[in-house]
Amino acid sequence: MNHDEFRNLGHQLIDWIADYRRDIAERPVRSRVEPGWVRQQFDQEPPTTPDDPQAVLDDLERVIVPGLSQFQHPGYYAFFPANASLASVLGDIAGAGLGAVGLNWEAAPALTELEELTCDWFRQLVGLDPKWQGSIHDTASTACLVATLCARERASDFALNRGGLRDGPPLTMYASGQAHSSVEKAMLLADIGRDHIRMIERDESFRMDTDKLAEAMARDRDQGLVPAAVIASVGATGTAAIDSVAKIVEIAQTYGAWVHVDAAMAGSAMLLEEYRPLWQGVEEADSVSINAHKWFGTVFDCSLLYVREPQHLIRVMSTNPSYLRTHRADDVTQLRDWGIALGRRFRALKLLFHLRLDGADAIRERIRRDLDNAAWLRDQIEAAEHWTLTAPPSLQTLCMRHEPPEADGSPLTGEALDAHTLAWVETLNASGKAYLTPTVLDGRWTGRVSIGAEPTERGDVETLWQAMQQAVTG
Amino acid sequence: MNHDEFRNLGHQLIDWIADYRRDIAERPVRSRVEPGWVRQQFDQEPPTTPDDPQAVLDDLERVIVPGLSQFQHPGYYAFFPANASLASVLGDIAGAGLGAVGLNWEAAPALTELEELTCDWFRQLVGLDPKWQGSIHDTASTACLVATLCARERASDFALNRGGLRDGPPLTMYASGQAHSSVEKAMLLADIGRDHIRMIERDESFRMDTDKLAEAMARDRDQGLVPAAVIASVGATGTAAIDSVAKIVEIAQTYGAWVHVDAAMAGSAMLLEEYRPLWQGVEEADSVSINAHKWFGTVFDCSLLYVREPQHLIRVMSTNPSYLRTHRADDVTQLRDWGIALGRRFRALKLLFHLRLDGADAIRERIRRDLDNAAWLRDQIEAAEHWTLTAPPSLQTLCMRHEPPEADGSPLTGEALDAHTLAWVETLNASGKAYLTPTVLDGRWTGRVSIGAEPTERGDVETLWQAMQQAVTG
Repeated sequence: MNHDEFRNLGHQLIDWIADYRRDIAERPVRSRVEPGWVRQQFDQEPPTTPDDPQAVLDDLERVIVPGLSQFQHPGYYAFFPANASLASVLGDIAGAGLGAVGLNWEAAPALTELEELTCDWFRQLVGLDPKWQGSIHDTASTACLVATLCARERASDFALNRGGLRDGPPLTMYASGQAHSSVEKAMLLADIGRDHIRMIERDESFRMDTDKLAEAMARDRDQGLVPAAVIASVGATGTAAIDSVAKIVEIAQTYGAWVHVDAAMAGSAMLLEEYRPLWQGVEEADSVSINAHKWFGTVFDCSLLYVREPQHLIRVMSTNPSYLRTHRADDVTQLRDWGIALGRRFRALKLLFHLRLDGADAIRERIRRDLDNAAWLRDQIEAAEHWTLTAPPSLQTLCMRHEPPEADGSPLTGEALDAHTLAWVETLNASGKAYLTPTVLDGRWTGRVSIGAEPTERGDVETLWQAMQQAVTG
Repeated sequence: MNHDEFRNLGHQLIDWIADYRRDIAERPVRSRVEPGWVRQQFDQEPPTTPDDPQAVLDDLERVIVPGLSQFQHPGYYAFFPANASLASVLGDIAGAGLGAVGLNWEAAPALTELEELTCDWFRQLVGLDPKWQGSIHDTASTACLVATLCARERASDFALNRGGLRDGPPLTMYASGQAHSSVEKAMLLADIGRDHIRMIERDESFRMDTDKLAEAMARDRDQGLVPAAVIASVGATGTAAIDSVAKIVEIAQTYGAWVHVDAAMAGSAMLLEEYRPLWQGVEEADSVSINAHKWFGTVFDCSLLYVREPQHLIRVMSTNPSYLRTHRADDVTQLRDWGIALGRRFRALKLLFHLRLDGADAIRERIRRDLDNAAWLRDQIEAAEHWTLTAPPSLQTLCMRHEPPEADGSPLTGEALDAHTLAWVETLNASGKAYLTPTVLDGRWTGRVSIGAEPTERGDVETLWQAMQQAVTG
């Protein structure tokens, strides 16, 4: 494709994206396609000659968009917000156009130094101490794996340079049973072994029960095991519950265990100074991850991982083959030694464009709006007959059930209640007006509303509440 | 940012990218900035209010581009080609604009099914059997880690579900000493332990010496260790040497060891049917990775990982928390269980756009052109006085030295030769006309030319050869 064809199609694409975003509310939030439909719309053999460019662009409307659930829709309340601010999209476009790859500093000084700069900007915005140094990873899953590997190597005195963990006593790792699935996965991939992973029970607020944590760590140590890491969830996936980082740090420090704070979701709330007490103790942790690509609004993927001791991270992740050595002295940062992948995209550009074009004040204001909207919906649910909150509301996440009496007046319970919950959520999702992802708390399905899509205003949440009340009538 | 501002800035950005790519040859290939310069061009505190949009765009020209080495420059011969075809950039732009995140099939059916489709297109293009099923990862480093973890779990009968590797005999893993740095890193991160990693010596063609491999595996087994995996390099990093996959597979099968074929670079050559004998035996391997974001030309990141038994991969990587369960039955693919990260970008779009807008024939033609250009340069070097090839040419990669006699007529050797090599490469790089990354072979620095940037034509390679000859005169 030559430059003029790119120019022509690029302009059409920009207009298409602008229109798509502007008119997105007219679409159903959840995709309605049947499994296999999208794939069947295309030739099953690869194109050998160029296709009609117009047909390629038209397929966005014909196939791609119907084949997606609309994360940027005002009726999106599923999973967690995954905003893709248009300012950050421009940064991503610039990065793609430049076609640079960060292999080492010399290959892409700007990629390296702007990753340092934008991570430091974000650090200032969430009020972390200057001792924290950040780098950008694809997802919090990867960030958590990196932290887990650092913890493993610190606790084993770098067993990777000998025979691996088998050379020493077994390491144990801990997290809340409410933690994201990626936490246990990281521990399993790091070869901790399921026998040595402790998913700690929750307290009444769905936070990790820190008494239980202290007991578990003491018991393990008494049995000759080595407590190596605790992952604290700041915004657990089901309820957005926030573990007590201060208590976790206090307990973990007794054992010299690494503390990783998984603030993938709730870290964005720390832009508001008044919410920072929620993660008190974070300064004593060893690593912190926050997804700029969630509530904050930088287009996916942009997961920030902060560490207090980059030298430790580098010692675990470092490689220094001759083809990556350069004429430069060691006065530059080599981000390849800060994570798993060698090559890196110019992700810093989307953070740079997002912050420069929108400014942090606008992001703070939006986060406040979402918190207000969640408080409003909480009030409606608390006041409504037969509706009940199934977990203490945390930030912008609400878990609720509609629990109507049976015909004989007895409360709806057990599997019948599950069926009712899944039915009204499905009614809502099938309507196309809203998209919720239900979750299981204490073995029972519960409705869940995660407020915070960029275009979601109070009026949208009012519409949602009306639709919820209608949906439960069947 | 509202839709109209996006439209306006987006159009400017598209034009800027088109101009940048068109005029790229006028820039120096290697960045000339000093460490710290890029970072110093910006406020060290985050912007609170919106910046002037024009200033943000202008900084691309003022700071970002001077701060990058130009991977898309016709004089780029460094590392390996990392092409970013404009057709694929359009796909990446569409993906960013859509703002979808692949968490499960329901969240983004099109993202899931087009990843399956485009991986299958690519499979057909490189002539792999339909039994291979692919998924897209960020880099070959990650793909290699995934393969290594699969190997670990197969060899240990899923020790991750018990106490980890410590529960059984030590596993050993093998690769060529010429393999990419990410290979050893993957084994170390997987807790194999350096004591159990064997980097096998090279043969005269810089391929893994398979006799040595057989000896090492036999010795390990005799000592009660369990050979678990061999990583074959199809395109080693220094020389692009291609290990004998057929022999490796034959040896590894005796031990039931996993064979991962790291064809990150050279896999693209398999688009040409006549080159497929080079990786003969690949069909008997367990996993294969190929970077579409290198020579093939899909914009970074787009690393394809093929496995023969997805069920095994899924068993290692799977998570199934309630918030990711959906109303759909199990008749869909959940790509979150095919890798490390839960969330995934819509990477399939760049592969889809690339192939549909350019067509595979054009990509094949470009690869043939690069192979011809490399053959031409090889001929010049072979015919030139004092120039010598330091490794057998492989595909589009050439390693060479200029070895002039000293004043007394004796050959230049040792550190003096190293200094001469690094000096002429640096002269070339400092000129701005070409960018080479030298490498170490058998303890000595060697020049290295990796041909295959998208705009590099025969004339550019002729210019390079002239510049090389000038550079050695000091």
